[in-house]
Amino acid sequence: MRKLRRGDRMVMIAHRLFQEPHKIFTFGAFSEALSAARSTISEDVAALRQVCDQFDFGRIETLPGASGGVRYMPFLPPARIQALTEDLARRLRDSARILPGGFLYTTDLLSLPALVSRLGDVFATFFRDRRPDVVLSMEVKGIPLALMTARAFNVPLVTIRRGGRVTEGPSVTVNYVSGSSRTVQAMTLPLRAVAQGARALFIDDFLRGGGTARGVGDLMRECGAGLVGIGVLIETAQPRDKLVDQYVSLLVFDGIDEAEGVVRLSPSRWAREQIRETSAEER
Amino acid sequence: MRKLRRGDRMVMIAHRLFQEPHKIFTFGAFSEALSAARSTISEDVAALRQVCDQFDFGRIETLPGASGGVRYMPFLPPARIQALTEDLARRLRDSARILPGGFLYTTDLLSLPALVSRLGDVFATFFRDRRPDVVLSMEVKGIPLALMTARAFNVPLVTIRRGGRVTEGPSVTVNYVSGSSRTVQAMTLPLRAVAQGARALFIDDFLRGGGTARGVGDLMRECGAGLVGIGVLIETAQPRDKLVDQYVSLLVFDGIDEAEGVVRLSPSRWAREQIRETSAEER
Repeated sequence: MRKLRRGDRMVMIAHRLFQEPHKIFTFGAFSEALSAARSTISEDVAALRQVCDQFDFGRIETLPGASGGVRYMPFLPPARIQALTEDLARRLRDSARILPGGFLYTTDLLSLPALVSRLGDVFATFFRDRRPDVVLSMEVKGIPLALMTARAFNVPLVTIRRGGRVTEGPSVTVNYVSGSSRTVQAMTLPLRAVAQGARALFIDDFLRGGGTARGVGDLMRECGAGLVGIGVLIETAQPRDKLVDQYVSLLVFDGIDEAEGVVRLSPSRWAREQIRETSAEER
Repeated sequence: MRKLRRGDRMVMIAHRLFQEPHKIFTFGAFSEALSAARSTISEDVAALRQVCDQFDFGRIETLPGASGGVRYMPFLPPARIQALTEDLARRLRDSARILPGGFLYTTDLLSLPALVSRLGDVFATFFRDRRPDVVLSMEVKGIPLALMTARAFNVPLVTIRRGGRVTEGPSVTVNYVSGSSRTVQAMTLPLRAVAQGARALFIDDFLRGGGTARGVGDLMRECGAGLVGIGVLIETAQPRDKLVDQYVSLLVFDGIDEAEGVVRLSPSRWAREQIRETSAEER
């Protein structure tokens, strides 16, 4: 092995930490892998923390004591979230996205890995105090966003299936009333997918009436697990009264004027407030 | 801005490159962002390339000339792929995974972001010469694997829907014969999701008869696009004759002995050969 310098060690440590956010790596492990003294590794990590702070790459935290070590947590500062949210709103207001029936075409943006990965970091920033140990998604469109949020927390993704299809062993099914269509539907989860007492975070692309999110809450209760947060990319302005109240959205969609080719969509009040609060906390 | 050292610049450059694989970043852009001479950036990149080679983080390539720059490509060397494939096979052979009816429970492993991200790098390594500009997935279980492959190539993910549901504007639908059940089914894609002339890579979790993969090929033809590769995590040993011949798999599943609690599953011959070939190329 060629002689490693500080920069080499910093890149190696950064790569390991970025690949597995929230996982605690001991100084000893890096010391061994890099054939360097613990005090040297400690200096490397201090330098890495500074550069991550400076370029908004997230937070590097060191934990003291015998079981101590270092971990990385994705974190986007308010200004970055604001820029990302506003940019996304602008792109979604493009009149070329208007579909017949007043729908909005969003699939392409929800399919760009680099963008969705950033959005996962946004949810990881918002829900950082909830310490989920599983992220839930509802098939199909919400999966990329939920997977990237799961990645930012380094926890498993669990996908809830619509209908009562059972192909993965014993399962739990609950019925729910779709908030928008007022019809009764079913959602199913393999029984072994979510452990008793798990802390589950539900991430989806769209929230209209909130019936799905409420059903997910019921499903978690049946599994003996807790729903610790609901995050959606876009909520609709109507209906104003949702079937869930504890949720956060990044954007609000207030319909389309098909004749004028106008899409009414903007950052949510919640997102704007959150950005302000995080700013205050940072000071 | 505090004075940046080599290690700081290396971490900053690495982070940008890792976030957007395959994208070419100019030396000029880094020179400006880091207030450093181009010759300095050039040395930083050279050092970064060495450390990426040494720790198997992937390949850093510099492109000369006026439009030149630097890009990062995920690449896992054969030994890593072998270790990953064998470890996965061992975990999947766990008799606790046997489901009634001779099925195998794989969902949990396909839901671990860090693992699936590594598997995406494996497919990106195998298909690195195909230069896909879109990765296709079939709902639902294959989505995480396909998304992480799309991420490794930094190209959009496009999810094909089963059935003829149309919720995203004009769409293309083809019928296909499911290789295992011999029934006729339909698959649908929004018309605007795949551009004329696109190079599409199809990634899925499971291949039995190959009917789905063949249908995806038909669908691409209807879109005026080309299918440049098919990669699956697991193929079944039976039937031996598949409806497609140009595909690669990492693992072969040869059924379950329910009475004995034995899962017959091992790395595919293709994967073993590929590992050997890549080894030879590396020498």
